[in-house]
Amino acid sequence: MPAAPAKSSSRKGLRPSPWAARRRPRHEHALKREAVIRAAAQAFRQRGYHNTSLDDLAASLRVTKPTLYLYVPNKEAILFECFRAGLAQIQASLDASERASGAARERLFGFIRGYAQAIVGDFGWCMLRAEDQHLGAVMSRRIKLLKAGIDKRMRALIEAGVADGSIRRCDTRMTAFALAGALNWMGHWYREDASLKPQEIAERFIDFFNHGLRGQA
Amino acid sequence: MPAAPAKSSSRKGLRPSPWAARRRPRHEHALKREAVIRAAAQAFRQRGYHNTSLDDLAASLRVTKPTLYLYVPNKEAILFECFRAGLAQIQASLDASERASGAARERLFGFIRGYAQAIVGDFGWCMLRAEDQHLGAVMSRRIKLLKAGIDKRMRALIEAGVADGSIRRCDTRMTAFALAGALNWMGHWYREDASLKPQEIAERFIDFFNHGLRGQA
Repeated sequence: MPAAPAKSSSRKGLRPSPWAARRRPRHEHALKREAVIRAAAQAFRQRGYHNTSLDDLAASLRVTKPTLYLYVPNKEAILFECFRAGLAQIQASLDASERASGAARERLFGFIRGYAQAIVGDFGWCMLRAEDQHLGAVMSRRIKLLKAGIDKRMRALIEAGVADGSIRRCDTRMTAFALAGALNWMGHWYREDASLKPQEIAERFIDFFNHGLRGQA
Repeated sequence: MPAAPAKSSSRKGLRPSPWAARRRPRHEHALKREAVIRAAAQAFRQRGYHNTSLDDLAASLRVTKPTLYLYVPNKEAILFECFRAGLAQIQASLDASERASGAARERLFGFIRGYAQAIVGDFGWCMLRAEDQHLGAVMSRRIKLLKAGIDKRMRALIEAGVADGSIRRCDTRMTAFALAGALNWMGHWYREDASLKPQEIAERFIDFFNHGLRGQA
């Protein structure tokens, strides 16, 4: 099922092909590799991981399949890079929250805003919908380790909140799982064309996470 | 990859094969079909959907593949039935919560307890981990409709709570998504051999859902 390049490249968010532009040679390989990963994430999201072949991907980038192999060895390695890119976005948001000043609860909410943004992107889609069941054992273990690192740092942020009094005493592990679950699930229901933007969803989630359900009655 | 029947049948939760017992003929077909669905859910969870063949399933039930075809037409139809069984457990919990008396928040929490129990079962695993991407368009649409029905009833329970004052004013749609996400995500991290039982996890989640994160500081 070859792609229709014109249609693919017209989709919002797809950058111009780096093969078309003149760039400094030392950056070129990295830039083109990044473009391959980005285009793959978009293709996986549009057609599903199983339904996207390297031929489709080459067509959408307007290159030949042998050219693609200069940058990536196979489809599994591309998916791994998509996972890593998605997790890197979440890690960047954690970095920022850990560096920030202020009560840990507010820093946690800052992280949640970044998390929500990462989840609704193409890399987020790959992480949530393609899932590591498509990765081999070695790559799957590496992704599990990266995820465990994020979970640990998220829990530390909640613990810091309990310590500074901004978060009430709770089971920090279960709370981190509940928060991550609510956010990750966005990958299953979020649609770009729906009425709420990711940041609006994040604010409504934060309102609920902050105050809970309990009413006056 | 044929199954090792002895090992499979020794696993906690697998009932004795209905093929081995004498039963009233009019119940037999339904009972055996149910046993096929149940054994399939267990096999999918143990080995993954893609890695489980109808041969494996027949072996684990100690029947021939042609016997299996008396009850189910193909693997996709079995997965559909696993989804339906998992959703039926969640619907049963909703039924009970809708019939119950008391504040809607407490009835919602009752539903959450049942939901958590359903998610960690074999049918819950199928719903969450096998996902409807393995179903064809027609079956996938039917599952989406069933899920939408659950989402709507869950939202109505939250709205009832806002109306009776037991739940604070909130975006009921987003709150339902956050709750469902937190619970569904259990399917990704819950392990039977871990320290917390599903009901203990549900209580910790409910504590968080009820009171939120906000501390005194």
